[in-house]
Amino acid sequence: GFPGNPGLKGDQVESALAPRSAFSVGLTSRVSAANVPICFDKLFYNEQRHYDDAGGKFLCAFPGVYFFTYHLTIYPRDTRVSLYRNDKAVMFTFDQFQENNLDQASGSIILRLEAGDKVWLQVYGEEKHGGIYADNTNDSTFSGFLLYPDAPATGQRR
Amino acid sequence: GFPGNPGLKGDQVESALAPRSAFSVGLTSRVSAANVPICFDKLFYNEQRHYDDAGGKFLCAFPGVYFFTYHLTIYPRDTRVSLYRNDKAVMFTFDQFQENNLDQASGSIILRLEAGDKVWLQVYGEEKHGGIYADNTNDSTFSGFLLYPDAPATGQRR
Amino acid sequence: GFPGNPGLKGDQVESALAPRSAFSVGLTSRVSAANVPICFDKLFYNEQRHYDDAGGKFLCAFPGVYFFTYHLTIYPRDTRVSLYRNDKAVMFTFDQFQENNLDQASGSIILRLEAGDKVWLQVYGEEKHGGIYADNTNDSTFSGFLLYPDAPATGQRR
Ligand SMILES: [Ca+2]
Ligand SMILES: [Ca+2]
Ligand SMILES: [Ca+2]
Repeated sequence: GFPGNPGLKGDQVESALAPRSAFSVGLTSRVSAANVPICFDKLFYNEQRHYDDAGGKFLCAFPGVYFFTYHLTIYPRDTRVSLYRNDKAVMFTFDQFQENNLDQASGSIILRLEAGDKVWLQVYGEEKHGGIYADNTNDSTFSGFLLYPDAPATGQRR
Repeated sequence: GFPGNPGLKGDQVESALAPRSAFSVGLTSRVSAANVPICFDKLFYNEQRHYDDAGGKFLCAFPGVYFFTYHLTIYPRDTRVSLYRNDKAVMFTFDQFQENNLDQASGSIILRLEAGDKVWLQVYGEEKHGGIYADNTNDSTFSGFLLYPDAPATGQRR
Repeated sequence: GFPGNPGLKGDQVESALAPRSAFSVGLTSRVSAANVPICFDKLFYNEQRHYDDAGGKFLCAFPGVYFFTYHLTIYPRDTRVSLYRNDKAVMFTFDQFQENNLDQASGSIILRLEAGDKVWLQVYGEEKHGGIYADNTNDSTFSGFLLYPDAPATGQRR
């Protein structure tokens, strides 16, 4: 699950001036299961802990405009992945696999999110379209960051 | 065409402090035509309306440093695409297609732009190199955002 | 080598308020050599000169959180590339090549860096896995930018 939102201490005030949220995660082994969130469990960056590496979902803490990108190693079968926002499939990436021709497939999107929105990736459709590979020298990754936080409400200074 | 630049109202002052510009768009159907801007007509994000989904071009409103990225579904033929800035082909992405092996091709670039500059994608060369595919469950996308706005001129505060 | 860090002049004070660091570079010819930094010598953007186009490494000048992305044209052989931070291979991208099926492979990552850290790409393992192609109408690129600079230490204003 997600950690609670910590209170602000004295020296956190400055960082509170500009909200920050970013994550960059990878897989440690292959994924084929369809219609469940892909759970990226290798953490390159997750300082704010907005990505839940147990459940596979990014939780929006600060309303604003976000950038997301993913890069998937396609092996050993065709793969169709969708990026979800709150149970709606927003964007699709499909790549076909052929013997001895491992491929890379990737996607990027910019979305406006409200606090509480969740964003994640999952294999779309049938398990026969789940061919996302990863091992020690092959990565499949998912990253995102807050690009523009919403302006604070009038009267609030931060 | 592009909308006019709206005047600032009271509560827009704050957002004027830091210029914002971002777009994220996709295709609703395949593209093969060469040497004309690819017109992405599915809008994931285009709040500032700096991307013209009728003409296919991003118009720079705020001078500064921008990031652009695109992810294309390659089917059913070889595809060569170029990112243009003001009629100059700046970067090229080529990917070959083979039967039963739909692919993904992508590119990213950071560019300094002046106000009025336009950036877009188009199939480069001959139509035989136009194999960008999209339908309900296959996306081809183009996104960009203002990374660092130019510092305002001395004396101007924003 | 890298240029020295220039002193601040009057009109540079403002830009010093928010540290900036970004680069976007490409190849002018193919690369196959393994286990040495890939030297991207075509400059799309390198205003701060934090990317050393002679040595192939990005040098972190401002501590903070960075985004990196690369897009490689795979031809004419299988390619395995790793993104390095200070002599440690952090992330791997592998793509297989087959005759008449030139491919694109890409990766992205977000990393926290300290001042002095270096980040670069290199072919991992054997030269038989070096098939990164580039010419006048085929690009292979590497880009990165400072996403969130570390907050300045208490008492320091910038
Ligand atoms: Ca391949
Ligand atoms: Ca493929
Ligand atoms: Ca291909």
